[in-house]
Amino acid sequence: MRIAFIVYDDLTLLDFAGAYDPITRLKTMGFIKDLEYHICSLKSKVKAFEGVELIPDKVSNDLSEYDYIFIPGGEGVIKLLSDSEFISWIKNIAKDTVVTAVCGGSLVLGAAGFLYNKSATTHPSLMKYLSKFTENVSEHRIVEDGNLITARGVTSSIDLGLYICEKIAGVETREKIQKQMDYSAYTTK
Amino acid sequence: MRIAFIVYDDLTLLDFAGAYDPITRLKTMGFIKDLEYHICSLKSKVKAFEGVELIPDKVSNDLSEYDYIFIPGGEGVIKLLSDSEFISWIKNIAKDTVVTAVCGGSLVLGAAGFLYNKSATTHPSLMKYLSKFTENVSEHRIVEDGNLITARGVTSSIDLGLYICEKIAGVETREKIQKQMDYSAYTTK
Repeated sequence: MRIAFIVYDDLTLLDFAGAYDPITRLKTMGFIKDLEYHICSLKSKVKAFEGVELIPDKVSNDLSEYDYIFIPGGEGVIKLLSDSEFISWIKNIAKDTVVTAVCGGSLVLGAAGFLYNKSATTHPSLMKYLSKFTENVSEHRIVEDGNLITARGVTSSIDLGLYICEKIAGVETREKIQKQMDYSAYTTK
Repeated sequence: MRIAFIVYDDLTLLDFAGAYDPITRLKTMGFIKDLEYHICSLKSKVKAFEGVELIPDKVSNDLSEYDYIFIPGGEGVIKLLSDSEFISWIKNIAKDTVVTAVCGGSLVLGAAGFLYNKSATTHPSLMKYLSKFTENVSEHRIVEDGNLITARGVTSSIDLGLYICEKIAGVETREKIQKQMDYSAYTTK
């Protein structure tokens, strides 16, 4: 089981951290011992919109080798939508990979062609832009359609991460992780 | 208005990001234009427990110059409790600074002598350790006592961040930030 977390300049840190926390607990709490996860980028250092700098694990690596890909949102998405190098990199995801995104990350999936005829969601303020990529824009917090899972704004990243935990390791494991995160607000609606 | 976010090896990223997001929105959404915030550490690079590396803004700087200090939790707290250099650094906070912590970060405040006769909280699994520093351990999600504000486990960092937003800029601003974060679960109880 291999999971890639995509990072880029001007991402929203909480978009990334919200899903990164529960998903990495699959390994750190001992549920999926052979889980491998990497923070992947086209740059060797990334600056979040809020200012903090992160150092990715992998730079310009092959995204076709992952079971799950996660794309956070953030102000940086605006530039990514016309960044042909970045979009090409994302397009190189394998067909059987589960592709996930939160907030503006859903627009990146749209630009990379993953949303055609799919139900998806994004931050409420971005839904009008998402409708350029698909007619099926949902207001639900988590939307799964085939191998695509999208979530709404910023904090819904936590719900998306927990949803992925449940898909990978079952409801009991998701509940144990949720309890350890002291999070009673989990919802997909 | 100056705020310091303390980081250290083996912190929980979401403990940090949960409060960092709403508090930095005070500036990025235009509510407190002269807000200054720094990520402060005793090291020039910090590795979170989950693996991601962060680059602090300030190293070994004077913490007496801040209006608010925020300390996240994480596995690394165990080492910090007997790290005299780190504890001395934290002790150097000014008397009128508002000192805030989430999860295991509350234990760091205990080791630095900030909890004497104060009500405080921490992650439910750590409450028995917190009781070594104060008799007034609360199970509430956010606990304010004088210039000390503590929060429970991991995700309560988001609530703490929003609580601080409300203290600094009022309830309407907190509600606007909360809406932008797509977070309906805010609670202090």
